[in-house]
Amino acid sequence: MRYIVGVDIGGTNIVVGTVAEDGSVVHGVRSVPTQSEEGPQAVLGRIARQVQSSIAEAERSAGVTRGMIVGVGIGSPGPLDREKGLVLLTPNLGWTNLPLRDLVSEAVGLPATLDNDANCAIYGEWWVGAARGARYVVGLTIGTGIGGGIVIDGQIYHGTSDVAGEFGHTTIDSTGRLCKCGNYGCLEAYASGPAIAARAAEGIAAGVATRLPELVGGDLSKITAQTVYEAAQANDDFALEVVRDTAKFLGAGIGNLVNIFNPDVVVISGGVTLAGDRLFVPLRAEVQRRAFKPAVERCRIVPGDLPGTAGVVGAVATFKNQMWGDI
Amino acid sequence: MRYIVGVDIGGTNIVVGTVAEDGSVVHGVRSVPTQSEEGPQAVLGRIARQVQSSIAEAERSAGVTRGMIVGVGIGSPGPLDREKGLVLLTPNLGWTNLPLRDLVSEAVGLPATLDNDANCAIYGEWWVGAARGARYVVGLTIGTGIGGGIVIDGQIYHGTSDVAGEFGHTTIDSTGRLCKCGNYGCLEAYASGPAIAARAAEGIAAGVATRLPELVGGDLSKITAQTVYEAAQANDDFALEVVRDTAKFLGAGIGNLVNIFNPDVVVISGGVTLAGDRLFVPLRAEVQRRAFKPAVERCRIVPGDLPGTAGVVGAVATFKNQMWGDI
Repeated sequence: MRYIVGVDIGGTNIVVGTVAEDGSVVHGVRSVPTQSEEGPQAVLGRIARQVQSSIAEAERSAGVTRGMIVGVGIGSPGPLDREKGLVLLTPNLGWTNLPLRDLVSEAVGLPATLDNDANCAIYGEWWVGAARGARYVVGLTIGTGIGGGIVIDGQIYHGTSDVAGEFGHTTIDSTGRLCKCGNYGCLEAYASGPAIAARAAEGIAAGVATRLPELVGGDLSKITAQTVYEAAQANDDFALEVVRDTAKFLGAGIGNLVNIFNPDVVVISGGVTLAGDRLFVPLRAEVQRRAFKPAVERCRIVPGDLPGTAGVVGAVATFKNQMWGDI
Repeated sequence: MRYIVGVDIGGTNIVVGTVAEDGSVVHGVRSVPTQSEEGPQAVLGRIARQVQSSIAEAERSAGVTRGMIVGVGIGSPGPLDREKGLVLLTPNLGWTNLPLRDLVSEAVGLPATLDNDANCAIYGEWWVGAARGARYVVGLTIGTGIGGGIVIDGQIYHGTSDVAGEFGHTTIDSTGRLCKCGNYGCLEAYASGPAIAARAAEGIAAGVATRLPELVGGDLSKITAQTVYEAAQANDDFALEVVRDTAKFLGAGIGNLVNIFNPDVVVISGGVTLAGDRLFVPLRAEVQRRAFKPAVERCRIVPGDLPGTAGVVGAVATFKNQMWGDI
């Protein structure tokens, strides 16, 4: 058995793990703050240290030897130039034209590959997760932003310049909320974590009855999407409404994807899955209302199976695919 | 040189032509009213007669011999079961579970294939038209309805049950106009031919100044999208506004497709292309405003090159692909 190290770079955390080449097990999972404000050299150093630390634990705990480690798969926010291994521009991380792939490869002394972080997460779910083996997969990663990925016949669909799958920036209300991207009415402007928190805060500002302020000690700036899910779990009426509204917005966006792709599976990863059935039940109902019956009937809409490690596992799958041409 | 007959079945007309296997020429183009109200047998008889008539003209005018005709490619409204050659359900034609492929094949004594009409039109544009040779193509056919098709690496993307590409039924305003499909805010509810006419009629009912009523002898029920384009051509302010609004709606829908597919080309066929630059210039501007720069920069948005015959030519391309595995 060979092993590949997966690196999932996010705006908040870097997650690293040492993955068996068949995807069956992840050793030495590490999660450290990205702290991108310290600049790319500092982040690169952190990545290299976590890769070594993860390998060391795999050696200690699972009898993996150094010679069994064959490479590093990296998932990073984009847009990217995959062929050259460059991160072209990441507003969240402040990187421009960073040759991330080769820098990581040199730092750890292993061959490396690069792909988009959302693509990696969906690819991980296709490889060994909730969309395992499905032929047509679309996926959304819903957290601080909304990323997306498309897997067709076991291959990530990248489009002509590696920027396909930006489902968060599809319009569901053409004259709606202003999105950070400059467009109006993007799905992300309604259903990302911060958008869910913003809608909750707006309701509170308008005077609705809710226990949400109590949960954050009265400091409304501390309300997050997770606060909303917790309040919904405790049957707070307004929090339940915010979750149902989220399901409606997501249902419009996902209904579009169902009518466009006629997929076998829509897999949803990220923080939003913490809302559980309170989100997924009305979400499926909304997609059913909006999309064509023959497409809806054939499509499962499911949460990811690999919370926390989908990106790491998927980065390893993209390594296999890019280096060996199969998976 | 071998020849294949293409059959493009629409709600209004059936178009037939005899196409050289390299797509270079179409002989004996025929267009007859579908008259689906007479039932499937009558329509099948019409298709068979037009196929024979088209072949006969190809023989007369171009020295094609009977032995050079190797099959019939059929494009039909769906949803379809391609493998079985069935039209599952077409509200416009009133067909249910019709074994169209085999019925046509028997009627004309030639092997036949079946695919969705919009897929065929886009495939024709990819094969020998405005999207010729492009790797990632999305297309829209905008007429009575809005159909769509996806071509990736020279293959039509069908999805898991042959209903992919329903771009007309993607939501651009989640609480917007009711669409015939039962959903709210579909692109088709704003930008199809009848929707364009309906928006014009609403403006007239609200008392705007326009010469549109003159163009239809005062009978507002006679206003069509084409009337609107003619008035816009004559610089009627309100008609120009209706066209610009159409560009905005289409721009939202196509901006979504650009962010989702990162395509090389978006090709638009059908009646709406008659609006010309008055539509395409503001449409491109709207997509540029809405979609990501690295995706927009790489994407041409163009009218189809094969008005009237894209469906016929594309049905022939699907025949080649289904029967011979290449094209």
